[in-house]
Amino acid sequence: VSPPALSDEFTLIARYFAPLAKDAPLAFGLADDAAALRPRPGFDLIVTTDCMVSGVHFLDADGPANIARKLLRVNLSDLAAKGARPLGYLLAAAFPRDVAETWIAAFAAGLAADQLAYGLPLLGGDTAATPGPATLTITAIGELREGTMLRRFGAQPGDSLWVSGTIGDGALGLAVKQGRLAGLGEGDADALLDRLHLPEPRLGLGQGLIGLASACLDVSDGLVQDVGHLATASGVACEIDSRLVPLSPAARRAVEQDAGWLSAAISGGDDYELAFTLPPGGEARLAATAKAAGVPVTRIGRVSAGKGVRVLGPDGRVLLLRRGGYRHF
Amino acid sequence: VSPPALSDEFTLIARYFAPLAKDAPLAFGLADDAAALRPRPGFDLIVTTDCMVSGVHFLDADGPANIARKLLRVNLSDLAAKGARPLGYLLAAAFPRDVAETWIAAFAAGLAADQLAYGLPLLGGDTAATPGPATLTITAIGELREGTMLRRFGAQPGDSLWVSGTIGDGALGLAVKQGRLAGLGEGDADALLDRLHLPEPRLGLGQGLIGLASACLDVSDGLVQDVGHLATASGVACEIDSRLVPLSPAARRAVEQDAGWLSAAISGGDDYELAFTLPPGGEARLAATAKAAGVPVTRIGRVSAGKGVRVLGPDGRVLLLRRGGYRHF
Repeated sequence: VSPPALSDEFTLIARYFAPLAKDAPLAFGLADDAAALRPRPGFDLIVTTDCMVSGVHFLDADGPANIARKLLRVNLSDLAAKGARPLGYLLAAAFPRDVAETWIAAFAAGLAADQLAYGLPLLGGDTAATPGPATLTITAIGELREGTMLRRFGAQPGDSLWVSGTIGDGALGLAVKQGRLAGLGEGDADALLDRLHLPEPRLGLGQGLIGLASACLDVSDGLVQDVGHLATASGVACEIDSRLVPLSPAARRAVEQDAGWLSAAISGGDDYELAFTLPPGGEARLAATAKAAGVPVTRIGRVSAGKGVRVLGPDGRVLLLRRGGYRHF
Repeated sequence: VSPPALSDEFTLIARYFAPLAKDAPLAFGLADDAAALRPRPGFDLIVTTDCMVSGVHFLDADGPANIARKLLRVNLSDLAAKGARPLGYLLAAAFPRDVAETWIAAFAAGLAADQLAYGLPLLGGDTAATPGPATLTITAIGELREGTMLRRFGAQPGDSLWVSGTIGDGALGLAVKQGRLAGLGEGDADALLDRLHLPEPRLGLGQGLIGLASACLDVSDGLVQDVGHLATASGVACEIDSRLVPLSPAARRAVEQDAGWLSAAISGGDDYELAFTLPPGGEARLAATAKAAGVPVTRIGRVSAGKGVRVLGPDGRVLLLRRGGYRHF
């Protein structure tokens, strides 16, 4: 039995993507090549774009719904790191020429689920066929009060360094997926894989950090590397005490099994937690903000004069890491 | 001699892309994962995204600077069709893993040239390596006075149908490139290829059509197919008289050589001209608008009750076209 013929792009858009724009009146049901946004006076719009390539950022085996949700969440994580509230997104999708229509249907269903969860509509997009791997780009748009965007720069010597949630689950989930990390219980392995496939953008926390954090970014390329970006942008040095880095129960059991996984956890990518710096005296407000957002935050180190990132190992001495995080080239 | 090693993505961004953002203070030199936009009160922001894949939308042989410029211009053409003034753009680029740094340098130089020509900065982006063909996505952002966006719908029976510039040069340029259209003088062949590689987004004309055109879109998939989109969105029928369709001198000579090229000209893609409808009595204002924009406009048909597109051939009888335009799947 040959598969049913794929509908043409216009039918695909009408059938699977136009319903995702129904709550955005200025997207005109995707019948136009562009959407309008009517920003509120006194607000800045925040724009960010992220691209994912099959075989690089995800595997086809992850399933179209998970791929769609991760693509959206990765972009939302960038908005979270700025303190922005999401307004909508555009999707440019190059699907393989031989993609099945059921794949696209499941991909759109994944977007629909997370649109509902995070309260943002599809505003527009573009669809093409590629002879190569699926290459999926989302541009996310958010808003925040004028001039309040959280930035990578602004950390000062004397500030403390914090992260949200737990660190390393994505990197250890990838190790499980690639068969490099075995011997965990099934529940632990699944927990790590879930965090790899479905990160949680920290939108509420990010919005709460406005006026509180001195610098902020989301951890996507690995904690050490991303804190390095924050240090460079701010013109300061950061020290991470690896003994303070919050680990999930699953990650903690992996590290108990082999201490080498701690280095993987803090240098691997795909956390999508927020790393931020806090001026002295902000702890009480931060605790209230984190509680309101329902996300734990943990102090993992400090900011000092100088440059670069120092990591203290299990014995309190400076740790040398082989690899600072994910690099594309 | 082996090629010099490619810099990592952070160096590439700092070296080639950050300079493209220097005129956008709220892009923060691309040191952040997002940019801020501060819209003027009373203005809508217009967002559009278009993706180009090597081997599908362009050939590597076109050269990186031309590829970059076409990518930007294709997106600007979408803004032009809405009547928007460009404010900036984001770039998500999946470059092949073995791309040469000189290729990226030339690509960025092409963007720089057209940023200057069209007056818009780079606001942000993402860079990845792909095992497949280069896949390049731009999201362009423009502005216009609140509620004035030109749309595909709004054409009424009795309106006239118009296009800007000349039609078919892109499609005939592709035929020259693929060796299907030979026998033209070298000047004509070059003129058609130039139009294929470097379309002219009709930004000034589009802005002038606000409050004048009843419906508008840009011709990217082929005149007949795109006018069909306008007809469907507006719930009307459109008639195109192929004898009225404006051809460049080069295209006219191709059609004189073989009348079959007329059908290719009106059904092929890559024109990036504006097609729009005009209510009765608007001709004088349109003439003044076109003159101010420096772009010729030509009446090519009319709008009536009904649906679909009818094309009148050289003898004034309805023409049957084998293929209505470019479709991806």
